[in-house]
Amino acid sequence: MAIEVFWISGSPFSWRVLLALEVKGLPYTSRLLQRSQGEHKTPQFLAMNPRGQVPVLRDGDTIVYESMAILAYLDRKVPSPPLFGTSAAETGHIWQLVCEQVSYLDEIADVFILPLYFGQSEERSPEVAAAIPVIHRELARAEAGLRGRSWRVGAAVSAADLALFPMVMSLLRAAGKPAAEAFDHRLTPFAERYPALAAWCARIEALPGYQRTVPPHWR
Amino acid sequence: MAIEVFWISGSPFSWRVLLALEVKGLPYTSRLLQRSQGEHKTPQFLAMNPRGQVPVLRDGDTIVYESMAILAYLDRKVPSPPLFGTSAAETGHIWQLVCEQVSYLDEIADVFILPLYFGQSEERSPEVAAAIPVIHRELARAEAGLRGRSWRVGAAVSAADLALFPMVMSLLRAAGKPAAEAFDHRLTPFAERYPALAAWCARIEALPGYQRTVPPHWR
Repeated sequence: MAIEVFWISGSPFSWRVLLALEVKGLPYTSRLLQRSQGEHKTPQFLAMNPRGQVPVLRDGDTIVYESMAILAYLDRKVPSPPLFGTSAAETGHIWQLVCEQVSYLDEIADVFILPLYFGQSEERSPEVAAAIPVIHRELARAEAGLRGRSWRVGAAVSAADLALFPMVMSLLRAAGKPAAEAFDHRLTPFAERYPALAAWCARIEALPGYQRTVPPHWR
Repeated sequence: MAIEVFWISGSPFSWRVLLALEVKGLPYTSRLLQRSQGEHKTPQFLAMNPRGQVPVLRDGDTIVYESMAILAYLDRKVPSPPLFGTSAAETGHIWQLVCEQVSYLDEIADVFILPLYFGQSEERSPEVAAAIPVIHRELARAEAGLRGRSWRVGAAVSAADLALFPMVMSLLRAAGKPAAEAFDHRLTPFAERYPALAAWCARIEALPGYQRTVPPHWR
């Protein structure tokens, strides 16, 4: 039975899993849920993930949620090509970048992104504005780490890349909303401030199967 | 050259790493830093971890920070006994529990713990009180997961155990402070409300080498 992925269009955490499946070249059945219909809060879905969050992966009898746990599962199930490096040093560095992103970027990025996505940026204006310098601090670290390199760790795409890319794309999408013009976000034009990150984004967009992972409602 | 661990007494994230080294049976050189002296903010330390956080592991030329990244590094370097399970399903489940802890418990636990540790619980009383039910929600999930089992995932101690245990101990230490009496925290007596978790704590305390990992200033 094929792997099933339950996901929501535009969820950066779901996007990581779709990218990982394409990098691994694994066939999967897409179960695209409609957030507006509450399809991630039905009894059937909550039986898989009581927290009511996407993504969820179902592989026969095995159910895994939390995006990075799903990547770890897939890497253990199908080790090649590796998502977590080819040596202990690479594994440590990849997880370090992932953990740093979780601790220092993901939450604050959502403070910027979600109000712009959901039309609340005017009422949340102080928090949105306060998030911007923190986001730039983290993007600048990622930019510095990518200078002179194709991928964040090692010689190939890894979980460190797949974890960050959807969040960068989400930041840029939010920054492109008309309501974002009220903020001095300086996220665009992205390639001027972050040339290494911009080139790296293009590298991910050129991966085989990438187009299948793009959030349908972004197309 | 032996593995060096830079850590601070009482840091639950440091404790995870010391426990992992004991479970692996790896020799290491302890570099205990004094928070009060700012030893984690010196130029030498910031050259290893620019974020100025413990734990940091140095293994020859390799430096890794972020506690879970260190556990992943150690597990790749010395695979046996495994910290991340013996099958893809176990690996996925272990990382799922770790990611859930990061997303739903660690931050809110600190909202309870840190003011009690640092004498600020009176001024932060509303936040401390508000954290309590969230902490109990997460502890109740952990309790349910442990019922009838020795370890959180699989047949042996894993990273899911080592990640949670120091946080549970830190919650109990904070709950034992005199200032905690001002709160209806219901964390003690722990074994009455959480018998499976209490028995599991005793199991970890019985691991070989456990005594070497106990925060020195707790003794």
